Amino acid sequence: MAKRSFWAWGHESDEPTVEQMKTAAVDIAERYNVDLTPVGPPNPADLSLRKPRISPPSSLADICASDDHDRAVHTYGRSFRDRIRAFNLDFPNPPDVVARPRNEQEVEALLEWCSSSGYAAIPFGGGSSTVAGFEPPEGYDGVVTIDLEGLDQVLEIDDVSRSARIQGGIYGPALEDQLRPHGFTLRHYPQSFEFSTLGGWIVTRSGGHYATNQTHIDDMVESVRMITPTGLWESRRLPGSGAGPSPDRIAIGSEGTLGIITEAWMRIQARPVFRASAGVTFPTFAAGAEAARRIVQTKLWPANCRLLDPVEAAAAAGMDGSSALLLLGFESAEVPQGELIRHAVDIARETGGTIDDANIRVSDGSGGNSDGDTGRQGSVGAWRNSFLNAPYMKNHQAGLGFVTETMETAVTWDRWPNLDQTVRAALQDALNRVCGGGTVSCRFTHVYTDGPAPYFTFEGMGRLGAELEMYDEIKKRASDAIMAAGGTITHHHAVGRLHRPWYDQQRPELFAQALKAVKRTLDPNGVLNPGLLIDA
Amino acid sequence: MAKRSFWAWGHESDEPTVEQMKTAAVDIAERYNVDLTPVGPPNPADLSLRKPRISPPSSLADICASDDHDRAVHTYGRSFRDRIRAFNLDFPNPPDVVARPRNEQEVEALLEWCSSSGYAAIPFGGGSSTVAGFEPPEGYDGVVTIDLEGLDQVLEIDDVSRSARIQGGIYGPALEDQLRPHGFTLRHYPQSFEFSTLGGWIVTRSGGHYATNQTHIDDMVESVRMITPTGLWESRRLPGSGAGPSPDRIAIGSEGTLGIITEAWMRIQARPVFRASAGVTFPTFAAGAEAARRIVQTKLWPANCRLLDPVEAAAAAGMDGSSALLLLGFESAEVPQGELIRHAVDIARETGGTIDDANIRVSDGSGGNSDGDTGRQGSVGAWRNSFLNAPYMKNHQAGLGFVTETMETAVTWDRWPNLDQTVRAALQDALNRVCGGGTVSCRFTHVYTDGPAPYFTFEGMGRLGAELEMYDEIKKRASDAIMAAGGTITHHHAVGRLHRPWYDQQRPELFAQALKAVKRTLDPNGVLNPGLLIDA
Repeated sequence: MAKRSFWAWGHESDEPTVEQMKTAAVDIAERYNVDLTPVGPPNPADLSLRKPRISPPSSLADICASDDHDRAVHTYGRSFRDRIRAFNLDFPNPPDVVARPRNEQEVEALLEWCSSSGYAAIPFGGGSSTVAGFEPPEGYDGVVTIDLEGLDQVLEIDDVSRSARIQGGIYGPALEDQLRPHGFTLRHYPQSFEFSTLGGWIVTRSGGHYATNQTHIDDMVESVRMITPTGLWESRRLPGSGAGPSPDRIAIGSEGTLGIITEAWMRIQARPVFRASAGVTFPTFAAGAEAARRIVQTKLWPANCRLLDPVEAAAAAGMDGSSALLLLGFESAEVPQGELIRHAVDIARETGGTIDDANIRVSDGSGGNSDGDTGRQGSVGAWRNSFLNAPYMKNHQAGLGFVTETMETAVTWDRWPNLDQTVRAALQDALNRVCGGGTVSCRFTHVYTDGPAPYFTFEGMGRLGAELEMYDEIKKRASDAIMAAGGTITHHHAVGRLHRPWYDQQRPELFAQALKAVKRTLDPNGVLNPGLLIDA
Repeated sequence: MAKRSFWAWGHESDEPTVEQMKTAAVDIAERYNVDLTPVGPPNPADLSLRKPRISPPSSLADICASDDHDRAVHTYGRSFRDRIRAFNLDFPNPPDVVARPRNEQEVEALLEWCSSSGYAAIPFGGGSSTVAGFEPPEGYDGVVTIDLEGLDQVLEIDDVSRSARIQGGIYGPALEDQLRPHGFTLRHYPQSFEFSTLGGWIVTRSGGHYATNQTHIDDMVESVRMITPTGLWESRRLPGSGAGPSPDRIAIGSEGTLGIITEAWMRIQARPVFRASAGVTFPTFAAGAEAARRIVQTKLWPANCRLLDPVEAAAAAGMDGSSALLLLGFESAEVPQGELIRHAVDIARETGGTIDDANIRVSDGSGGNSDGDTGRQGSVGAWRNSFLNAPYMKNHQAGLGFVTETMETAVTWDRWPNLDQTVRAALQDALNRVCGGGTVSCRFTHVYTDGPAPYFTFEGMGRLGAELEMYDEIKKRASDAIMAAGGTITHHHAVGRLHRPWYDQQRPELFAQALKAVKRTLDPNGVLNPGLLIDA
């Protein structure tokens, strides 16, 4: 099996070469008019972690590892902060043990060991958290990170109900590989798809492929099977229910604090055959936003309805920097999509959008390729490639002092113009002060009848060695602005350790108390992912 | 203001006349080949309730009532059991006080009074519960029913976000009346619409108008404002979020056990203009079910996709009793619906359905009447009238010993044929033994990609005075069968006192413990609707 990089997105083979890092340095040096000499990538041989403070009981020794590389891989996610710290070989608080249970009995045994010993037990999916979702806590005598990669099977497919029973540790590609021979797909593609798992998606309320209607993984969950320190929590498979508050909706979003999801019945679907796509340009981001709002309020339910501001449209889709770009995509296994996209394009044109009829691509799947190609051509295809490649490109930019990150939220339409203005201002202001300038851009990743989910990207030239402090100041300013403007601190990246201060402002205080009470019931010794969502 | 009947569906003016009851008796007597002499309707003057055991503090006296009629109206909902008991003037455990707060301060003061005195505090919406959702508990020194009818305003409309801030005690018709002048609608029409409230819908996870896609009120809630004995619980207005488990999803379905919903921001929409409808006949219920499954899995998202078995099709839509009927309806404020309904009809025909092209009704709203008429003609219109009138017709059947009720569930498609068979068998078997025969019928009220929500109706000729015991036996047999076949004990009627035994089997036991912990946090003295969902 390919070995994961301890610092970069992907495997060791995805780590950038010195040459690639030089190319990135030249690009950034030109853009920011500075001199840059890249620091070379770190050497795994230089890893020197704190010695493990605990060892597993002999009954669990077979599934536990404690070597430096493995523990380093399980210390940080893949945010900017994570990448910088790992690149700098800065691992002051790694887990002591990395456990890889092969079945539920071993998950139970691991929780029992941690619970009875007072060790922190950290569930680990694909390792792509951008919010420090599995970073070990301080103040524990031992930390055991439970990597669920062994629970990697689609166990059962119910084709009449279009549902599948799937293990929680399965990675995105394996999940799709196992559904594909049966003609089905989950069709959930977060940007982390390659390095994230079903269980991870569920406990972080992941947002995926669909830009409208049912966007979050929440709505695809039919039932959940979760091991807690107190025992098994399993909900009944149901297409819908009105029997009390939904048990699943407490497990969904629990970020590893209540239990470990070993299985879930998920709603799956036939693979799309009919597709249509269009990239509509707008003179301003605001005009594009108005089109997106009208399209979603018309309930045409496009699978894709992503709006890029002029900066993003230039960077990701090859536009000239003067126009915003609305990417529309429709898809269906059975129904031709031409009517729908033409209706959406009509709305877009009414609000000032421009597209030639020839650039509205409609495919009936007759090419025999169920993946079609309407989403892989023109500006839509350019954006798609850029989206998938983005995490890898960031690998090249480490070791330069360059500061860049993304932030996402959701807000009602009435508050959106103010949020756009104040968050951009906060970011630009902070970049100016901290980095002496920089760039801010925004896109909509999802749109709802009552508001968009905006996704901001910022970058600035920082100072090597000071990136983390610089980042922290920018992040704080922008997060405060999101809160003040009525947004959520996260639409689909989760809370983690990173967003706790703002999450605490956002949620009802009584809900925090209620969640603490739930936590005490399921995890009486407070060992599961301590510090996430609530204090012990 | 019209006075509510203490026993019948509706107001006192809706109570049946002696003549109407005679007509119903003749009809039932003919069908069951028995002699029937109806007992006349009860006289409000004969109400003689237990004297109130408590009186409100003087500061609350203005908003409290304790007369017999008012307390009788607030004792029972409108299930079969409720109607029989009220008809028989059987009110052994009425509330002591009926309070009508006019604002949040008075809600707080009422909860404070109950919490400090140990009196049960029972939130009351429109009074149409069919599951004993607000029936006073035994074992309390005092019971205060809090009728929220004073909180009856749409407070704010955000037309750009298509959302409205609405008070929890508003009845269905008033809610729509207040949205209509702005061109909006919530479009949530449970059968109880006339006598149920927004807050009631939210805490019971009401299912309404839409038969596919977003069917439950759950998905229309943008945020919730709830007064608990511990304080205010208010979530942030957000179109979507991934920040921890959803606070709203704990309030939704809480059945008055955690707090009183005083306001909610709700997702509203433009009133439909384009409509299409069709009634497709099938030789069997199973063939119709296959069509419904394929239509919903194709994700055409019809607003109506109700399937009536031959018995229901005959009774409610004037069919001849040999065919099942699939009622399809599409609607949109902006998009013509002809293509969609023709696609759905094509699928229905492929699975054995029959309809003349001339009977596919498509309206572009050009008549200028935004209510259109496509849903009010033919078999579709006949069913609509029957649906709205059904609760009133039951008023006529009291006092005869006649036993009739509905039961609803949801189940995955793979388990549906067995559930259909075993629940029908259980009902028929119980009717045969208890009533010496009777009728069972079924319809789908909602359909999901992974399963239908079946709705059973049963009736049999019981014995006057013994109806409740007879009903209990039938209900128990059928509910056990639903559980055994993998269904939920309720899809949209809620749990109440009626469904507790089966709800306890269905939910994860650890979820019950978690919910108890939440309850202790929000309602430490256990005064809010005691006995619902969990034991104190």
